[in-house]
Amino acid sequence: MAQLRIALAQMNPSVGDLDGNAERLIAWTRDAADRGAHLVVFTEMFLTGYPVEDLVLRTSFVDASIRTLEEVARRLEREGLGDLPVVVGYVDRAGLAPRVGQPKGAPLDAAALLHKGEVVTRTAKHHLPNYGVFDEYRYFVRGDRLPIFRLHGVDVAIAVCEDLWQEGGPVAVVGQAGAGLLISPNASPYEKEKDDVRLELCARRAREAGCALVYVNQVGGQDELVFDGDSIVVDASGELVARAGQFREELLTVDLELPVSDAEPGFFPYDAGDGSTITVERLVLSPDPVEPYEPAPATIAEHLDLHGEVYAALVLAVRDYVAKNGFQSVILGLSGGIDSALTATIASDAIGPSRVNVVLMPSRYSSDHSLADAEELVRRQGVNSRIAPIADIVDAFEKEIELSGLAAENLQARVRGMILMGLSNQHGHLVLTTGNKSELATGYSTLYGDSAGGFAPIKDVPKTMVWELSRWRNANSLPQFLLDAKTPIPENSITKEPSAELRPDQRDTDSLPPYEILDRLLDDYVEKDMGSKELIAAGHDPELVTRVIRLVDLAEYKRRQYPPGPKITPKNFGRDRRLPITNRWRETTD
Amino acid sequence: MAQLRIALAQMNPSVGDLDGNAERLIAWTRDAADRGAHLVVFTEMFLTGYPVEDLVLRTSFVDASIRTLEEVARRLEREGLGDLPVVVGYVDRAGLAPRVGQPKGAPLDAAALLHKGEVVTRTAKHHLPNYGVFDEYRYFVRGDRLPIFRLHGVDVAIAVCEDLWQEGGPVAVVGQAGAGLLISPNASPYEKEKDDVRLELCARRAREAGCALVYVNQVGGQDELVFDGDSIVVDASGELVARAGQFREELLTVDLELPVSDAEPGFFPYDAGDGSTITVERLVLSPDPVEPYEPAPATIAEHLDLHGEVYAALVLAVRDYVAKNGFQSVILGLSGGIDSALTATIASDAIGPSRVNVVLMPSRYSSDHSLADAEELVRRQGVNSRIAPIADIVDAFEKEIELSGLAAENLQARVRGMILMGLSNQHGHLVLTTGNKSELATGYSTLYGDSAGGFAPIKDVPKTMVWELSRWRNANSLPQFLLDAKTPIPENSITKEPSAELRPDQRDTDSLPPYEILDRLLDDYVEKDMGSKELIAAGHDPELVTRVIRLVDLAEYKRRQYPPGPKITPKNFGRDRRLPITNRWRETTD
Repeated sequence: MAQLRIALAQMNPSVGDLDGNAERLIAWTRDAADRGAHLVVFTEMFLTGYPVEDLVLRTSFVDASIRTLEEVARRLEREGLGDLPVVVGYVDRAGLAPRVGQPKGAPLDAAALLHKGEVVTRTAKHHLPNYGVFDEYRYFVRGDRLPIFRLHGVDVAIAVCEDLWQEGGPVAVVGQAGAGLLISPNASPYEKEKDDVRLELCARRAREAGCALVYVNQVGGQDELVFDGDSIVVDASGELVARAGQFREELLTVDLELPVSDAEPGFFPYDAGDGSTITVERLVLSPDPVEPYEPAPATIAEHLDLHGEVYAALVLAVRDYVAKNGFQSVILGLSGGIDSALTATIASDAIGPSRVNVVLMPSRYSSDHSLADAEELVRRQGVNSRIAPIADIVDAFEKEIELSGLAAENLQARVRGMILMGLSNQHGHLVLTTGNKSELATGYSTLYGDSAGGFAPIKDVPKTMVWELSRWRNANSLPQFLLDAKTPIPENSITKEPSAELRPDQRDTDSLPPYEILDRLLDDYVEKDMGSKELIAAGHDPELVTRVIRLVDLAEYKRRQYPPGPKITPKNFGRDRRLPITNRWRETTD
Repeated sequence: MAQLRIALAQMNPSVGDLDGNAERLIAWTRDAADRGAHLVVFTEMFLTGYPVEDLVLRTSFVDASIRTLEEVARRLEREGLGDLPVVVGYVDRAGLAPRVGQPKGAPLDAAALLHKGEVVTRTAKHHLPNYGVFDEYRYFVRGDRLPIFRLHGVDVAIAVCEDLWQEGGPVAVVGQAGAGLLISPNASPYEKEKDDVRLELCARRAREAGCALVYVNQVGGQDELVFDGDSIVVDASGELVARAGQFREELLTVDLELPVSDAEPGFFPYDAGDGSTITVERLVLSPDPVEPYEPAPATIAEHLDLHGEVYAALVLAVRDYVAKNGFQSVILGLSGGIDSALTATIASDAIGPSRVNVVLMPSRYSSDHSLADAEELVRRQGVNSRIAPIADIVDAFEKEIELSGLAAENLQARVRGMILMGLSNQHGHLVLTTGNKSELATGYSTLYGDSAGGFAPIKDVPKTMVWELSRWRNANSLPQFLLDAKTPIPENSITKEPSAELRPDQRDTDSLPPYEILDRLLDDYVEKDMGSKELIAAGHDPELVTRVIRLVDLAEYKRRQYPPGPKITPKNFGRDRRLPITNRWRETTD
């Protein structure tokens, strides 16, 4: 057996910021060297950030990615770090002749091994995910190589992300070819409770590959995706050895004892078990094991509970969306209700209350407690606030056009949206919208009104979970939260009956069923794609099934116009679910 | 040789309207029978409409598609049409065990042969397009069969849409197996000048398959896609035999003389030349040729020129978006400028001027000619109009919040957007937005202002083409246009200098280069994906290149919030081009 100290660089890259990402790779490699690591593993497409969507179809972008990789290799050597091998993800190209249906330039979701100033070997993801949030058949061609490099006597294989999730391919080939360690750079987005699935997967693949597995995942927010980190090391039997934290950057080092190999170098084709052939490239960096040393104890980060996990995801998503898009501050309307109260709290935790601006916009229908509850939150959190009553503006509109019923309600919501957008344009704040997933699903919101803005922190959070998260936050905090307040959310905002307050004595339950009932139905219809018969068989009220299905189907256009927001569930309304707007199909109950 | 009369049903299905599509299939089959056809061919996924996006992931939807197909077969028989074979597209399922990365339920983009009340055989698309507007790896698994049925002595093969576009697969197998005729149901969306590409493709594939080819394409608008019809028949040498019109429904019949076959029925595996095996299923409907008859002369529809083609596409897109979404009328703001003038004209041509409502919303910065030009258009077209000055509403806002510069300009655009949305909510009109592609590309529009609405007819039309289309329409008409007016667009709207009129003496050229220069640069950057170095090498001004690239890249968020509109170019800003919002990558000129 031979020892290796592996450094897992669980980092937060910025999409498109090749120079910045490269800079941070150098810094973290230096840290890893200082900690005595023998290998540093960065995440999937770390140099370019992930996902980059149609940027990969630009020749100049792929050129820049490849150039940056080669510069990084040289720079590591110049800065005295060349002896420490680095595995890092980037975008490369396959050099295939163009053909119909092949992404322009044949890009590869690639990973490279850097050593002594050189790019020693390159590989690319074999299985391309094209479901849920992934569109990779659009962007990449598949890789067909599996590098296995000898490092201090141990054979180390590299397989990118999805290659762990699907049957056959590189992992199956590792099992046939034999290796002492499989490392996997990932950019695997968060979904609630995905960490359990992920650990089980890593354990299973380690057993299939017959070797220890190092799984390094991206962390950070990128548009609608939040990456949770949660990097994992398991041994060859699938036992958990080390685990990094969630929703925070971390350079995790782990000492492993691994089998020594003397397999011949060269190129060897293998049947990948999925109809394709994968060529194993065996090469030797350093044949001899390191001198024995005292291993450091491995750390296994404590995991957050469900609400802590979701809340931390939302905070990180807001922080990164603000920072990576170059905003300094946010603005939102504060109604006194729970949705805007939770959104304000997330924002305060993300960027600090001094950079959060709230506007109280009472109308003729606002209740006394609304203003009072909003003011109480301002007091507790110390955010910046102003009041802008909307009655006179609404009157000015109504002098030009006659509106009644829903049209008049929408007008009020739109006046508020315009005030926020005006202040955003004037002062450069990013507008946060405050709608939740239950509203978004049923279309209970106003186009260009409460849905106007740049980012929607709780758009994938059902209303019942909005209350749960608020209670959780009033009872808990995490080191990464920037708001220092006990019980930051007024109890009254949590306990009072929800109302849009767009007409006298309005209640959400005038238009919608109670949220506990609605959210269960939405979960079955949207997340589980159950048909109306199945929904009724599952115990939902038949009349409600018909009504809610109709609401959800008709709200497709509104949802498309909604700002992006962090994905929390398997089926968010952003990248995950795409219906035609022009659609006559309705589930029926007959 | 044997004769066959084939009916090509170039129709406009509605997505999700299975019963309605089935009803019309019966009616058109009756027409085809009346015309003495021996075979009727409907388009790809005709029964469900195309594209249906995530609907195919619903079990209940796929069930309904299969059930509808079987009902249609029985109903054709009941109505005395059972002897006439019908080929029609629908959605089926492959019956595969679930696995990671496979679309839920393993749906198939299928086509079936109906005869004597039965579904005689089923096949499915083999090549799944996953580029441009297509996401079919997300939705379908691939078919691996090629039915060849003997019809009055002639062997007829069926291959769906994309199977014509890619190398290898069913067409290659037809060439090996031998057939007398290849029929292909399609849903191939319009792009300018695609008709030329399509004819050339059909000719080439006919020669490869060694037989005549019948290409039947969908017509109609579906969200952002417009299908142009343009169904084609070529003989085995690739010569054009018959061609249907563009942008209109048509039951085209054609008489062909085709080779007789006596090949054995059964199942035969073939190497498809793309790494897969395709099973040919040979079956016999009717072994003997029909009695000789006098063939009718074939019709080759005259083709529209570029501007006629684009304009007809926009008209059809608006008509179908309005009708298929259940609207009765549209509303738009009429400024006196060319964009809103052209949009109003398209709307009048699509649904008739009596269902078009325009609102004139002068501000303190509107010039005299603006109102006069708008009123002149109202007079020429007979659309419904009203005036709603915005100054008092703007004042009411400015009493609550202090706005200056761009923020104040945006406010005016938003007040107009809110007036239109208010009237839309009150009266049920669909709001049409009037922005063009040059504005959309550079972000020269106001979020929730001029971009507020339900459909954006000219969002994929560059400004220079807005002028060209306006001139074309003033000089031309087509039978399908509902507006009866000579020169419907006031000349002054076409010739005057463009201005947003949001501040005194504003001109578009204050913020943007002249449109002739801008549009050429946008075409090279957006459509051709050229990098900054290539753009400069192509003769664009370096400073302008940097500026425009920055404008385009930063406008990604605005474009995402824009309403859908008909796709006209290869790279529209709807389904075709997807960049991250959070993105630090900028083309540089160094």
